[in-house]
Amino acid sequence: MRSASQNAELALLLEVAGTPKPGNVDRSRDLEDLLFEHFLAGAVGAQDGLRMAASGEPVGRSFERAVEGMAEQGGGNTQFGALLLLVPLVKAATDGLSRSAAESVVADTTVADAKAFYRAFEHVDVFVSEPDPELEALDVRRGSGAAPALEERGLTLLDVMDRSVPGDAVAREWLTGFERSFDVADRIAAARGPVADRAASAFLTALAERPDTLVAKRRGEETATNVMKQAAELTRADGDAVDREAVESFADDLVSQGINPGTTADLVAAGLFVALENELIEL
Amino acid sequence: MRSASQNAELALLLEVAGTPKPGNVDRSRDLEDLLFEHFLAGAVGAQDGLRMAASGEPVGRSFERAVEGMAEQGGGNTQFGALLLLVPLVKAATDGLSRSAAESVVADTTVADAKAFYRAFEHVDVFVSEPDPELEALDVRRGSGAAPALEERGLTLLDVMDRSVPGDAVAREWLTGFERSFDVADRIAAARGPVADRAASAFLTALAERPDTLVAKRRGEETATNVMKQAAELTRADGDAVDREAVESFADDLVSQGINPGTTADLVAAGLFVALENELIEL
Repeated sequence: MRSASQNAELALLLEVAGTPKPGNVDRSRDLEDLLFEHFLAGAVGAQDGLRMAASGEPVGRSFERAVEGMAEQGGGNTQFGALLLLVPLVKAATDGLSRSAAESVVADTTVADAKAFYRAFEHVDVFVSEPDPELEALDVRRGSGAAPALEERGLTLLDVMDRSVPGDAVAREWLTGFERSFDVADRIAAARGPVADRAASAFLTALAERPDTLVAKRRGEETATNVMKQAAELTRADGDAVDREAVESFADDLVSQGINPGTTADLVAAGLFVALENELIEL
Repeated sequence: MRSASQNAELALLLEVAGTPKPGNVDRSRDLEDLLFEHFLAGAVGAQDGLRMAASGEPVGRSFERAVEGMAEQGGGNTQFGALLLLVPLVKAATDGLSRSAAESVVADTTVADAKAFYRAFEHVDVFVSEPDPELEALDVRRGSGAAPALEERGLTLLDVMDRSVPGDAVAREWLTGFERSFDVADRIAAARGPVADRAASAFLTALAERPDTLVAKRRGEETATNVMKQAAELTRADGDAVDREAVESFADDLVSQGINPGTTADLVAAGLFVALENELIEL
């Protein structure tokens, strides 16, 4: 049987293998400087950190190690957001993975976890919005330089995530018991066919549901909302893509515009992990 | 830095990601019951056995464990031959990977390694030829049942491989200091572009060089020789594919005929590992 850390790594691989996944690297699409193979190397590199989480190490240090290993490839940030979901989920899986187990894990995070999270930004360039001026001391780009501010204010990693909601769909998962991750898992389980195809379909449904927060940060709310509406037009109520050709053309369109709904892909990776770990799917 | 076992796993992933890889599952092609995602799961599953080899455990037991984990997916045998190359190479990498280090590792194999190799066949269906009647006691399909015959004759795993040459290109690597694996590594290093593309190109060159022994076992020597000649027509002296469209059409043709040059893919996986481990390529 695959271990929780192996399931997490496989989730990262299945996520990038699904196609069409409009705007993102997938089995059929590379971006200009970000290739499919960078995601393969990123998933393999994340292994040690994922294994730390599975063996009960703190979320922060496990995440930092996972990001450090993930970043050992030339494509830059491939799976930062996905790992921020997977690490607490892997840790939660040690006693049976459930939404309440995941809630306990994030509720138990400490200031030390928050400091390690900030250190993770020293290993890789992550796109972030400019913080409000009064939050400058807590700008993630400060890396370990933010440690005194975190300690002074006594902020745990959950507190840090709390401050990023609602503008960050990954942080939102931390505050909602990983609601959308578990929803994606259920959708993947309910679908048929190769798992990577189901993941691509779940990606489109999730994209149709809420604006992608990475797109919103990079290109503005309006673009993110438009992408959501376009995805919605392409999905039916049951979540299956209506017209594969139309989805392919939407995918090409987003790639050519450089619009990359990366946060929605992170949710799909988390959903794949839940589905694998709870044996909702066979592979 | 990636560990040797991580490089081996990444080699398995990059191998299957290369396209076009005529006749095999690749980034663009699934076979009927053997999907891209089965190879992803096989690579992740092989992890524990690869890690055993990296930490100095015997080749036989590491290989058996790698195969057992690889087989935990619904596609059947995905990477048996590749692992039979990777496990000794990973073990050889502990003191700096070279052909002579690999030769020492296989020369040091024992009867216990041979017995573990036979046990590996109990975890997965591997295509093998009918043995000569006098070798029936050593038919690999006997699994652990062959142990008394192995002990009686004092056969090490290298001896077992020796008896499979020249009909098996993987066994031939064991007897030649992994000659073709290191050649493939050099070709991948000398090429340009995404690593997975270079691997696909190296696959075609290797296919043009010698008949694929899996094709020979399954479909006869003549078919294997024809496939080799067709591949040769598509490659130039420098190993680059002349005409991508012609290679794609050759790939479709082999898939539709059910001709699957799996042993050549195994050599490419081994070559990718050597190239990654000896830092001949960056990714």
